[in-house]
Amino acid sequence: MEGVLITPLKRILHPKGDVLHGMKRSDAGYKGFGEAYFSTVHAGEIKAWKKHLRMTLNLVVPLGCIRFYLYDDRLESPSKGQGLRIELGEDHYARLTVPPGVWLAFEGLGPSVNLLLNVADMEHDPMEVERAEIDAFPLN
Amino acid sequence: MEGVLITPLKRILHPKGDVLHGMKRSDAGYKGFGEAYFSTVHAGEIKAWKKHLRMTLNLVVPLGCIRFYLYDDRLESPSKGQGLRIELGEDHYARLTVPPGVWLAFEGLGPSVNLLLNVADMEHDPMEVERAEIDAFPLN
Repeated sequence: MEGVLITPLKRILHPKGDVLHGMKRSDAGYKGFGEAYFSTVHAGEIKAWKKHLRMTLNLVVPLGCIRFYLYDDRLESPSKGQGLRIELGEDHYARLTVPPGVWLAFEGLGPSVNLLLNVADMEHDPMEVERAEIDAFPLN
Repeated sequence: MEGVLITPLKRILHPKGDVLHGMKRSDAGYKGFGEAYFSTVHAGEIKAWKKHLRMTLNLVVPLGCIRFYLYDDRLESPSKGQGLRIELGEDHYARLTVPPGVWLAFEGLGPSVNLLLNVADMEHDPMEVERAEIDAFPLN
């Protein structure tokens, strides 16, 4: 999908506890720093849908597993009308970059804590977020 | 301790999974963005000691509980010779800002995953990290 990146991330094993890469300012998808915050999503729950008008999201799942659903209804996008589904987490440790204008939903898959870090290029601003009901766009 | 900040953070409750603040660019302690990465530390293990010569650390524990030990041997610091001990985690959700030059160790307290996010003002650079054995400085 146009502007969407999936970037594999390193997990560095350590006997006392691993180190997991997240985001570097020199990484693909980095658009500046505004805020880093966590969302959690319980097993079987879907948080849907949100679209950011200005924010680029950089999403990392260091714990559990989360399925992301993207839908592109950007007027001039080459991938307009397309959806994307991807699972990230401990078993597929990668960063998902979501540009402004793409609809996003996500579902908790892991039985315990499903933790999402967003390294966003701007601070939270409710004026740049649009919401839609879960049935507004296809989930697959 | 000179230059060390402890900033309470919000946890926003949500039936499908909470949202946890981490770091905003307008927050106290923000010195720029270089890298965000995770460390984990198993229950009863202590990762000790490290000192960053240039990096400012902003440490958040969204999951589990971690005890941090700081020791100040900065030559011209008003708090030279002082230590600091603080526990952060789900039950005391706050951000710990550690300026360059302060020794840091941390210990896993939670029985399951103890997860630490560092929002650092520079990318990892092994040349700016010093290490010391666990008995080099007092742990209380």
